[in-house]
Amino acid sequence: MARARVYITYKEGILDPQGKTILRALKSLGYDEVENLRVGKYMELELAGTDKEGLEKRLGEMCEKLLANPIIEDYDLEVDV
Amino acid sequence: MARARVYITYKEGILDPQGKTILRALKSLGYDEVENLRVGKYMELELAGTDKEGLEKRLGEMCEKLLANPIIEDYDLEVDV
Repeated sequence: MARARVYITYKEGILDPQGKTILRALKSLGYDEVENLRVGKYMELELAGTDKEGLEKRLGEMCEKLLANPIIEDYDLEVDV
Repeated sequence: MARARVYITYKEGILDPQGKTILRALKSLGYDEVENLRVGKYMELELAGTDKEGLEKRLGEMCEKLLANPIIEDYDLEVDV
């Protein structure tokens, strides 16, 4: 069995109102060192199989089709077999 | 300036209905190799400062106070200075 992680973030230039709200809240709590914050999604998967390259390819397809919205989001993935 | 990443996941035993829904959707698309999927949050931060240890401590506080809900969520963080 393989373990995989997917990181989904908004593309550069796409507004991230949730991130802006959290940034403002952090500053109001006194965390002035935070200069920018962007929120994304994170998924942990368990996959059957041990073919790292094949699993990465399939997981990339899953991201394109369902997990991410490739118009406005970038994704990054890691598979450990 | 330092860059940091925060990964927030539900603790073991906490239900993850969003993950279950995505898992079902993947299976209905034919991705039967996916055995489990859990959804979390991912944040990318830019922090002023170069004191890696100090920044990690402050970021841990931010997670405890605002970014994560420590009752039901675990968090993991990385700071690159």
